Amino acid sequence: GRKVLIVYAHQEPKSLNGSLKSVAVEELSKQGCSVTVSDLYAMQFEPRATRNDIVGCLHNSEEFNYGVETWEAYKRGGLSSDLVEEQKKVQEADLLIFQFPLYWSSMPAIMKGWMDRVLVQGFAHEFPNCYDSGLLKGKLALFSFTTGGSREMYAKGGISGDIRYLLWPMQHGIMHFCGVKVLAPHICFAPEYVSEEKRKEMLIAWAQRLKTLWNEEPINCSPEWYFK
Amino acid sequence: GRKVLIVYAHQEPKSLNGSLKSVAVEELSKQGCSVTVSDLYAMQFEPRATRNDIVGCLHNSEEFNYGVETWEAYKRGGLSSDLVEEQKKVQEADLLIFQFPLYWSSMPAIMKGWMDRVLVQGFAHEFPNCYDSGLLKGKLALFSFTTGGSREMYAKGGISGDIRYLLWPMQHGIMHFCGVKVLAPHICFAPEYVSEEKRKEMLIAWAQRLKTLWNEEPINCSPEWYFK
Repeated sequence: GRKVLIVYAHQEPKSLNGSLKSVAVEELSKQGCSVTVSDLYAMQFEPRATRNDIVGCLHNSEEFNYGVETWEAYKRGGLSSDLVEEQKKVQEADLLIFQFPLYWSSMPAIMKGWMDRVLVQGFAHEFPNCYDSGLLKGKLALFSFTTGGSREMYAKGGISGDIRYLLWPMQHGIMHFCGVKVLAPHICFAPEYVSEEKRKEMLIAWAQRLKTLWNEEPINCSPEWYFK
Repeated sequence: GRKVLIVYAHQEPKSLNGSLKSVAVEELSKQGCSVTVSDLYAMQFEPRATRNDIVGCLHNSEEFNYGVETWEAYKRGGLSSDLVEEQKKVQEADLLIFQFPLYWSSMPAIMKGWMDRVLVQGFAHEFPNCYDSGLLKGKLALFSFTTGGSREMYAKGGISGDIRYLLWPMQHGIMHFCGVKVLAPHICFAPEYVSEEKRKEMLIAWAQRLKTLWNEEPINCSPEWYFK
């Protein structure tokens, strides 16, 4: 059975994001996958990158450099336990699903903090092992999110610009950098402004997509996909 | 005298980011500007968008919707005091400078949390008052940051893609959405990999730019600037 990690960032279980998460757990479990959820708000996940992420002495206590310190701590097994826990989940996963509402053209800070803190040098990348040779290669990622703006606002030429513009930093800048291949995003546009029936259709569409997810080819994560 | 708010996100005062912030405080103060700094790590600024941001009863306690609740709380004066404090600083400022190290193709989570929590509907935008008619119109913003990757990696056709691709969600998606005009970004590429002398030159270049900053024209914050 394949292993899936869902990194989930919504405060409200009854939200559409909560339902999308539950649909994924249900459908993927039904397929025989082993599914783990990191429910970031419920875990009160710490988003701030600080000295607390390093257990014991610093490599250089004169001038704190977060990237260097977490890299060194990773190598000597000195990262804080919440990070070690998340890294174990990532290590075991074949697929990472990020489920969140779009906040300010990106992921909510609590999820950005998960990226900032979990994807430590030495674990997820280590120069020159980045992009296609990133240390998490062999894994897949999928960004599944809801928007406030409508599909029209996020069309090419729309006031908010092509939604793919926003995906570049997340999909290419983070996941591809770590060697992870990216499946097409799953986007529910403006669920707050549609009927309850339409929202139910959104859940059904997600469940449907998940049924054949393992047959999907990753996108070509290069500028052409995003900006052509 | 003009008013400037510097939103600053680095853990280490001795870092280049710390020095860039100090240079800005010094140079702008010398010009007669009144400068305020929100030192996010020192403030232990909360990045998570939660129910704690609303004082007193919720508008809908059955199903928590952060956007709706903070909007309602803003209107009745019921936002948490740390947010009210930041909003006051924003309201008074003519120019917002964001000073940070690029983390995963974007701002650090602690600064993303500042955006997520401070730029509340009703305060920073309120449909249809967004983009050119955003509620913070008349203000300027400038993103000043350091990178891990080199200028070559962030060139058009470089492995990390044009650095302007990363600026779209921050400059257009956040600041322009709120009606703020954006000055050209200030980018120090890969300071960790250059000599101490080169880093000093970076500080001098920043101070130089600030001397004539108020004569600068904002960029044309449209897809052409980012993706042409």
